[in-house]
Amino acid sequence: MARKDRPRDRFGEPAAGNGIMSRRIFLEGALVAGAAGASVTAARAEPLAVPAWSKQPGSPFTPYGQPSKFESKVVRTFANPANAPGTGSARTPHQHLDGMMTPSGLHFERSHSGVPDIDPEQHRLVIHGMVRRSMVYSLENLSRYPRTSRIAFLECAGNSGALNQAQPAQVDIQAIHGLLSCADWTGVKLSTLLDEVGVDPAATWVIAEGADSSGMSRSFPIAKAMDDALLCMYQNGERVRPSNGYPVRLLLPGFEGNMNVKWLRRLKLTNEPQMAKDETSKYTVLLQNEKAWQFVFPLEVKSVITHPSPGHLLKGAGFYEISGLAWSGNGTIRSVEVSADGGKTWAPAVLNNPVLPKALTRFRAAWQWNGGPAQLQSRATDDTGMVQPSRAAFIAERGLRGNYHFNAIQTWGINDKGEAANAYA
Amino acid sequence: MARKDRPRDRFGEPAAGNGIMSRRIFLEGALVAGAAGASVTAARAEPLAVPAWSKQPGSPFTPYGQPSKFESKVVRTFANPANAPGTGSARTPHQHLDGMMTPSGLHFERSHSGVPDIDPEQHRLVIHGMVRRSMVYSLENLSRYPRTSRIAFLECAGNSGALNQAQPAQVDIQAIHGLLSCADWTGVKLSTLLDEVGVDPAATWVIAEGADSSGMSRSFPIAKAMDDALLCMYQNGERVRPSNGYPVRLLLPGFEGNMNVKWLRRLKLTNEPQMAKDETSKYTVLLQNEKAWQFVFPLEVKSVITHPSPGHLLKGAGFYEISGLAWSGNGTIRSVEVSADGGKTWAPAVLNNPVLPKALTRFRAAWQWNGGPAQLQSRATDDTGMVQPSRAAFIAERGLRGNYHFNAIQTWGINDKGEAANAYA
Repeated sequence: MARKDRPRDRFGEPAAGNGIMSRRIFLEGALVAGAAGASVTAARAEPLAVPAWSKQPGSPFTPYGQPSKFESKVVRTFANPANAPGTGSARTPHQHLDGMMTPSGLHFERSHSGVPDIDPEQHRLVIHGMVRRSMVYSLENLSRYPRTSRIAFLECAGNSGALNQAQPAQVDIQAIHGLLSCADWTGVKLSTLLDEVGVDPAATWVIAEGADSSGMSRSFPIAKAMDDALLCMYQNGERVRPSNGYPVRLLLPGFEGNMNVKWLRRLKLTNEPQMAKDETSKYTVLLQNEKAWQFVFPLEVKSVITHPSPGHLLKGAGFYEISGLAWSGNGTIRSVEVSADGGKTWAPAVLNNPVLPKALTRFRAAWQWNGGPAQLQSRATDDTGMVQPSRAAFIAERGLRGNYHFNAIQTWGINDKGEAANAYA
Repeated sequence: MARKDRPRDRFGEPAAGNGIMSRRIFLEGALVAGAAGASVTAARAEPLAVPAWSKQPGSPFTPYGQPSKFESKVVRTFANPANAPGTGSARTPHQHLDGMMTPSGLHFERSHSGVPDIDPEQHRLVIHGMVRRSMVYSLENLSRYPRTSRIAFLECAGNSGALNQAQPAQVDIQAIHGLLSCADWTGVKLSTLLDEVGVDPAATWVIAEGADSSGMSRSFPIAKAMDDALLCMYQNGERVRPSNGYPVRLLLPGFEGNMNVKWLRRLKLTNEPQMAKDETSKYTVLLQNEKAWQFVFPLEVKSVITHPSPGHLLKGAGFYEISGLAWSGNGTIRSVEVSADGGKTWAPAVLNNPVLPKALTRFRAAWQWNGGPAQLQSRATDDTGMVQPSRAAFIAERGLRGNYHFNAIQTWGINDKGEAANAYA
C-alpha cells in the first residue's frame, strides 16, 4: 500500500483499499474524533457573535409546517413542462437526504395522466369478479376494519434504467435513482376484505385499477393479496398524499412500484392476468437473447451510495462518511459492503437500525480520502442470499435493452478535485 | 356476562369485559371479516359510476407535495393569536393520524420566543467550558463527521397536564396529549465532538443553549452526552424544519422535550447545572407534600388511545378497532393492555412492528361495541418493568399541583350515542 493510502494510526489499519476504514469507528464510538476537525476549518472558540435572529422574536406558530426557505433547492425533479400533466415521474433528491424515511412532500411520484382531485366522501372501491358476493366500500366503510402499519420502500421498476446506456450519463443520483422512497404506510389488509367477499378457489389473479383518467391497472397473484397486500389510507402518519394515491392506494411490499396502484377504485378477482398495456408494452424485462421476462414482480436486492454522489464536492483529503441506502423486495438486508477501488477490495458497512424487511436500510462506512482518484461502490446482500450484481454481470445476462429492474452496482468516480460523477467500473 | 356483551361466535370468547376481543383477530389473520361489513353500509357491487376526476387529466407534478385540500382540518392547534410569536406550543392532531411516524408538518412545536429565521451558512455552534480546547463548528464542519439515525419520540414534559384538574376537561386528544410526536432523526453523536474537544474529567454537566431570542437553555448530565445524545441536522429524511430547530437541534432520546434544545448554538461543559429558569420555575415536578422533583429527565412509560377518542363518533354497535400510541423514555414498550370497562378487566393489545426503544409504538386491539356505555383505557409496560399508573395512584403520590411528567392512564368515556369524551375512572 502506498504511503499516501495509509490513514493515521488512530484509525488502525484500513479495512479495504484506497482508504475504507474499519467499522469500529461506528461500532465502538468516537474513534474518528479529530479526523474531521483537523481537516476542516473549525476554529478555536471566541465568544460567539450574537446573530440578528437572536435579537428579535421569531416567527409565530403555523398550522402545517414547511421546510426552511434555505432548503428551497431540495425538491423533486421532473421532465414534464410546468403545469403539463400526463405521463411522467417526479424524483426524490437522495443527494440531499439522510436517514431511512422519505418525507411525503419528496416521495417520488409516477403518474400516467396527472393526479386526480378525489373527494374522499364520494370515492368508492369495488371488489368483484370471482367472489361469492361483490362489495362496494366507501372510505367510511374501510375505516371500520382492523389496520396494520409497516415501513416499506417503493421503487419504480424503471428506476436506475439510466445506467443501461453504453456510456455513463453525467447526471446525479436523483436523475438515476430518484424513483425510490420509503414511508410508514397504514391501512387494511386486503386479505381481510377478501375473506369477507369470499374468493372463488379457482381465482388466481387480482386486477387492480386506479381512478385516474388513464385507468392505470395491473395484475398481481392472489398469493400476494393473501400475504401482505395493504389498502393504505395513511402515509407517514397522515392521510396519503394526492400524488401518492389519496384517498386509498394499494401497497404490495417489495413489488415493482407500478403495481402499487394509486387512487384505487377496483379489484377484480380472475383466473388470468389482464395483459394491460403496463404489463405488456411496458414493465416487461427485455433480455439480450430476444426473450423477455414478464410478470417479474419483486425488486431485487440493491444499494446506492447517496453521500458522496454527483453534486457533492470533497474539500480536501481526510475523513468522509460514505452513506447510502440498501433494499430488497425479497426480504431484509443482511449486509452491505463498500469499496473505494472500484470493487477490487471490499469492507463491511454499518447498517443503521432499524433494519426492516422490504424497507430502505441506511448504511454507513468510514473513508479516509487520500486526495486522489477513487471509485466508490456499494454491494448489498439480502436474507435470501441474493447479492447485488456487478454491472458487467448484469449486462452479460440482460444486455442493454432492458430498462426495468436494473439493480447492478453503481460506481461514483471521484477525481482529484473531489468531484463525484457517474462512472462504469 | 350479560348476553348483550357477548360477541358473535365467529370471534370466539372475548378476552376482557365489555367487548374487548382476542388478539387472534390480528395475529392469525382475517377472522374479523364480516364484522365491519355487516355493520356498515357496504353495498353489493354495481358497475361503478365513473366520477368526474376519472374523465379528465389530473394535476401536474409538483416540486414539493402537500396534503389533499380535503384534509385541511388536519393541522396543529395553538392558543397564541394569529401572527403573535412568543411562548407557546402547537399540538399534533393524533385523532387524525395513524402509524408510528409524525409528518414533520404536524410535529408538535414548543417555542419561547418564536421560530428564528436562521441562515445555515452563518450559524455556528460552540463547545466550550471544561474542555481541553474550545471549538466552533459551522454546519459544513458538522457535516464532515460520522452520523447516525434513530427513530425517536419527543414529548413536552407538560404534555397531558390537562388531566391534572379536579374535573375532566371536555377537550380532545390534541388538546390533552398533542405535545407528543415521533420522527426519524439523523445527526452527529455528541460524544464524537466531545472526544475531539477533550472533556475535563471533573465536568459533570452540559449546558445547551438555543439561538432563539429567548436564549432557551437547559442542563443535562454528561453521562447522557456520552450515551445517545445526537446533534440532529435531518428529520424524517430532510433537513430539520425551522419549527423543530433548523439547522441543528439537540436530541436527548427519552428525556423531556424542553431539554432537546432547538437552534443549538452553545454547549458548555460545567461541574454544576445552570439553574436556568426552565429548570427552576418551570419543568420541576411539584408534589403534594410541598416537595418537588427537580432534574427528572426521562419521560415515564405511557400510552393513550387515539381511536376512538373525542370527536370520533361510533355509528352503531359492532366491531371497532381500538388503536393508540405507547412510549417510554426509559426504554422499549414490552406490552400494552386495553380495557373497555374502566380498568376492571384487561386484555393484551397487539404491538405494531417495529417496536423501538424511545420511539412511539402503535398498538391495536379489537372491540365489539354493544352500543352501551364503555370506558376505554390503555396501560403500557416498558422493558424496565415500569407500568403506567392509574390516575388515582398518580394523584395519590403527586397531588394535583404537578403539571409535568403526567403519565397516568387516560380514560375515554363512550356514551350510548357513540360519543367519546375525556373521563376519570
